[in-house]
Amino acid sequence: MTEKLRIAVVGAGYWGPNLARNFRGSPDWDLVAICDLDRDRAQALADKVGGARVVTDLAELLESDEIDAVAVATPARTHHAVARAALAAGKHVMVEKPLADTGERGQEMVAFAAEQGLVLMADHTYCYTPAVLKIRELIDEGALGDILFIDSVRINLGLIQPDVDVFWDLAPHDLSIIDFVLPGGLRPLSVSAQGADPLGSGKSCIGYLTLPLENGAIAHVHVNWLSPTKIRQMIIGGTRRTLVWDDLNPQQRLSVYDRGVDLELQNRDEADRRAATISYRLGDTWSPALPEREALGAMAAEFAASIHEKRPSRTDGEAGLRVLAVLEGATRSLDLGGAAVPPFDERILVGGLS
Amino acid sequence: MTEKLRIAVVGAGYWGPNLARNFRGSPDWDLVAICDLDRDRAQALADKVGGARVVTDLAELLESDEIDAVAVATPARTHHAVARAALAAGKHVMVEKPLADTGERGQEMVAFAAEQGLVLMADHTYCYTPAVLKIRELIDEGALGDILFIDSVRINLGLIQPDVDVFWDLAPHDLSIIDFVLPGGLRPLSVSAQGADPLGSGKSCIGYLTLPLENGAIAHVHVNWLSPTKIRQMIIGGTRRTLVWDDLNPQQRLSVYDRGVDLELQNRDEADRRAATISYRLGDTWSPALPEREALGAMAAEFAASIHEKRPSRTDGEAGLRVLAVLEGATRSLDLGGAAVPPFDERILVGGLS
Amino acid sequence: MTEKLRIAVVGAGYWGPNLARNFRGSPDWDLVAICDLDRDRAQALADKVGGARVVTDLAELLESDEIDAVAVATPARTHHAVARAALAAGKHVMVEKPLADTGERGQEMVAFAAEQGLVLMADHTYCYTPAVLKIRELIDEGALGDILFIDSVRINLGLIQPDVDVFWDLAPHDLSIIDFVLPGGLRPLSVSAQGADPLGSGKSCIGYLTLPLENGAIAHVHVNWLSPTKIRQMIIGGTRRTLVWDDLNPQQRLSVYDRGVDLELQNRDEADRRAATISYRLGDTWSPALPEREALGAMAAEFAASIHEKRPSRTDGEAGLRVLAVLEGATRSLDLGGAAVPPFDERILVGGLS
Amino acid sequence: MTEKLRIAVVGAGYWGPNLARNFRGSPDWDLVAICDLDRDRAQALADKVGGARVVTDLAELLESDEIDAVAVATPARTHHAVARAALAAGKHVMVEKPLADTGERGQEMVAFAAEQGLVLMADHTYCYTPAVLKIRELIDEGALGDILFIDSVRINLGLIQPDVDVFWDLAPHDLSIIDFVLPGGLRPLSVSAQGADPLGSGKSCIGYLTLPLENGAIAHVHVNWLSPTKIRQMIIGGTRRTLVWDDLNPQQRLSVYDRGVDLELQNRDEADRRAATISYRLGDTWSPALPEREALGAMAAEFAASIHEKRPSRTDGEAGLRVLAVLEGATRSLDLGGAAVPPFDERILVGGLS
Repeated sequence: MTEKLRIAVVGAGYWGPNLARNFRGSPDWDLVAICDLDRDRAQALADKVGGARVVTDLAELLESDEIDAVAVATPARTHHAVARAALAAGKHVMVEKPLADTGERGQEMVAFAAEQGLVLMADHTYCYTPAVLKIRELIDEGALGDILFIDSVRINLGLIQPDVDVFWDLAPHDLSIIDFVLPGGLRPLSVSAQGADPLGSGKSCIGYLTLPLENGAIAHVHVNWLSPTKIRQMIIGGTRRTLVWDDLNPQQRLSVYDRGVDLELQNRDEADRRAATISYRLGDTWSPALPEREALGAMAAEFAASIHEKRPSRTDGEAGLRVLAVLEGATRSLDLGGAAVPPFDERILVGGLS
Repeated sequence: MTEKLRIAVVGAGYWGPNLARNFRGSPDWDLVAICDLDRDRAQALADKVGGARVVTDLAELLESDEIDAVAVATPARTHHAVARAALAAGKHVMVEKPLADTGERGQEMVAFAAEQGLVLMADHTYCYTPAVLKIRELIDEGALGDILFIDSVRINLGLIQPDVDVFWDLAPHDLSIIDFVLPGGLRPLSVSAQGADPLGSGKSCIGYLTLPLENGAIAHVHVNWLSPTKIRQMIIGGTRRTLVWDDLNPQQRLSVYDRGVDLELQNRDEADRRAATISYRLGDTWSPALPEREALGAMAAEFAASIHEKRPSRTDGEAGLRVLAVLEGATRSLDLGGAAVPPFDERILVGGLS
Repeated sequence: MTEKLRIAVVGAGYWGPNLARNFRGSPDWDLVAICDLDRDRAQALADKVGGARVVTDLAELLESDEIDAVAVATPARTHHAVARAALAAGKHVMVEKPLADTGERGQEMVAFAAEQGLVLMADHTYCYTPAVLKIRELIDEGALGDILFIDSVRINLGLIQPDVDVFWDLAPHDLSIIDFVLPGGLRPLSVSAQGADPLGSGKSCIGYLTLPLENGAIAHVHVNWLSPTKIRQMIIGGTRRTLVWDDLNPQQRLSVYDRGVDLELQNRDEADRRAATISYRLGDTWSPALPEREALGAMAAEFAASIHEKRPSRTDGEAGLRVLAVLEGATRSLDLGGAAVPPFDERILVGGLS
Repeated sequence: MTEKLRIAVVGAGYWGPNLARNFRGSPDWDLVAICDLDRDRAQALADKVGGARVVTDLAELLESDEIDAVAVATPARTHHAVARAALAAGKHVMVEKPLADTGERGQEMVAFAAEQGLVLMADHTYCYTPAVLKIRELIDEGALGDILFIDSVRINLGLIQPDVDVFWDLAPHDLSIIDFVLPGGLRPLSVSAQGADPLGSGKSCIGYLTLPLENGAIAHVHVNWLSPTKIRQMIIGGTRRTLVWDDLNPQQRLSVYDRGVDLELQNRDEADRRAATISYRLGDTWSPALPEREALGAMAAEFAASIHEKRPSRTDGEAGLRVLAVLEGATRSLDLGGAAVPPFDERILVGGLS
């Protein structure tokens, strides 16, 4: 049996407790420390999970030989500094989404982890839910055929964040999921973003992202803090079947429709014959059973496995970068009134993402 | 009692039968003729509605003194010619959506009807449904407050049309509804359209329309022929309340949520105090009862009333033009890779829409 | 090609027009006459379906050689007299549900039709819907295994009928469906009925029917005129799978759940080991595609086929009798304060139902 | 400020941890001890809630002056013995549902608590949910008018219990809720129960309870362990409005329909005029906002308040007895093949419940 890895959670605010609880419950990990500038907050969390060393100084934490890895749940603008320090100290790192607050800093983190030979994992939690794991499996095995479109809606009456807009707050979920399920990851041809701030809050509260993909396919994301009705739905249309994921319907989260439009295109130029060659399939619908399993538990296991097996984790730093690239593209597109922009700016492209 | 008006339906294809049936059943109208180039199709429709004169020649129909008005249900590219001929012959005209196949032709129709002193009505059927009439009433009486956003989704496994893309096929519904319920009509600051044709059909089968409105508000429309799951939902967010219209839920089509985000902005420049002034209302939800009434019957009544009262109908030619302007804008935006374009091109603007 | 059969519809009230329209549209039938005591009503219906002979005198209609069959849509208390006269005149007969107003009269009709060698069909319309045909098919092929329970709910804000209670008004639908899908038909061991008349209308407006079946299975029906929310749902639990039919969800009427409780009973007497041998299956859900097809058209076709092939129709008089027996049982149970009663009273049993 | 009361939780199995967690989090209570025959289980629970004294001997626990009250979460068959011992030791007692395993023992507990001047509270948790509290409030203020019917469905793929049938396992929820919301509590005129055990488990796995109420009203409960689809719905029809509670729809748990059937009965004997005097209201639907609040917290507060104020709690022992009476009635009715039985057997009636 493999020995347990030892981890510290850095940041005891909103997300840290979830990480701490799951590492504590994991058979792969020993949760050894909680680190937060606010000692009381760190102590309260340590108590809640049944005890752990409390540290307020990151440097002190990282000096210690007692830990193999850190999980970073601090504000996004500090991710780069914290992760870099941890990597420099030889620790494997998992970082809450988004990987960093700029693509450039994210790029730097990825490069440094590679240099150090350490695992840098993006905490794309949704990717470890049974629903998303099943979607990836279905796409991988060809059940949907080639992907034609992805339409994702994530709207709710949400807390208007003081420092980020609705794209940076909510869209990382959708983007990381799309990145996870698409073979080859999310590599849009361009990014365009439309936003609105009808309350005058100083940032977009309603956002639409359009991401043309290869082969004429398209992904579109609608995020909204102002909707009184909550919708979390993703439709993934393929040449063979179409999948609908309704995350708020626990009795039938996934539905796979054996329905679609078929287009025979042998006679492309004979326009008047074209209509005749369209056909519809109206087949059965199928809803795969999903195990009840907490995503964070599976993520903790994957973090451990990628360290033991010396391989990138399934949601590695590169995945985090691809999400970041789209978010930065969205910001640039917004600045340009919604124009389509390349998904990566020059500086990042120079570094090379592929 | 007012005498009945006499009408002919031109076009006996997909939509004509619905018009014929409703004019036949209307207390305001005598359906006197069916006109179609295909005599058998015209005759079959005449039989089905209990008899009417059958005509294959439009000129012959329009010469007759027996008719006061025509309802045009021919392909969009013929709307201009048919409507112009009818107006020239002194007949009032109702035209199936879209009003014309180009904004310029629509503009010309509107101007000519005004010259002739005749009613030109757009057949924006949805506007006469009990749900849309109630939405307009709620907005008019201030129940929603100022409009912040409108998000409309109309997706289904739909017939790929041989001659028009998904914007021109489906979005006229959403646009005419938004035009009808917004005080002052739909007058977006710009139009941007994102489309995809992943099957290579030669036209967009999936479309997203973004329409920034005054005061930071936004309207967005998602139309899609390739979705195996059918959604027809419009969310209208206001400063006081938010309305959700789910047209596929006959048991509760309209829900008015007394929920929302309030933002106190007295201290706009003190950014760090801003978060503290956000508050939420989580009030009751209310679903108004709607009468069961066929929209086309109400539309026939409105057509008659606008003729009798010598006033524009509630969905007049101008409304048709506003819809057309957005559709043309969408086409231009698509050509420009999704860039935001002014909603009206110069030629139309010269004519003056406001 | 078989020659068309000729039919007359007797009764032009609520249901007659549906029958007339479907026989008129059927490739198997010529609709030749409409018979109603009220000539205007008969004429109006004849006009609406494109013409048919109008008769007010049943005897005159039945004398005619022009008809092969009659479809009876008169009030239930007249079914026996009308059907008997038609059978005596050598006509095949289809009768709207319920077959008759008493089991005895129904029994007499069935016996007389057999004597005359004519088809007597019960108009159990629901049995010809795509959903019910599919349910029967699934049960026949063993997809559900042995039936464990059937729970049917049919509630709505309904018209309080002047002459019948909610059992006789609504439950024939549920009972005829259950009879149709159960191999061997609906043959309950007993009937008990609980009713309530909280408005003091003089009859049950809310009703519950309990029907123990063989092998410990049970069927239960809830009918209710006073519910503001409309539910039409049937759950059919089997040893292998369970089916849920939600008739108000056109996007997914049928769901087949590969879930259930398995009970290993090898060690029946070792009570303390029993709990350990319960196991659960939590498999996939599957929703078969259903064709869009009007039930009455399929019923008209079945009526013609059973006449041509000289065989009982799929919903024959015997099926009508089984439904009637439960309805009569319900009435007797209500009189006895809800006690379980045998499903058939002696007189009917003497005639023999099997 | 009132001093905190001190409580011990007896029973660390399925439900005890929920009680312990809520008493630990309550401002009214100090959780001082966990008592369970299994020391490890007790210790594990004590650790989980941040520490408490662990006791394995009930007598030892009750001798202590350190506790004012006990919360009993042991198997139902032990409720009487545990509660009696606690009451004898001068402790206030809260007992998990059902109050006891027989009505007679429950009766004895209630009488003894009264004698001792101590609070005996039934843990009818659902009654403290925001939804049920709101339903009670609506009925109290007359929003529904007089109650006409209550239909409750609680079905799910459930664990087949080794010692109790589906009535005793699930129906206490429905019955305690109905008891709580009906002014005067649940006092049916009779009880009849229909059950089925199609798997041969030795007890009913599917159950239907019919409870005629005063003035022609009726309550009906459907409980089922074998349904693959989960439904928790209660419809409460009144003369003024009807309420639907869908506990699995967090976005709209309660809907109040201003719809119904009105029956004018001035001319009761003129039967033929009766139909004309039925009228329908088809008014709006309204869904009250509900606070997010854990029921067990509210219950802990009520337990404390009833002790401080020396008054019966809102779900007192009498409420527990009324539920028990129906459960016993159900068992007797089952034994009699579903016949309606009086809700209380003689022995209980002698004691006098009203």
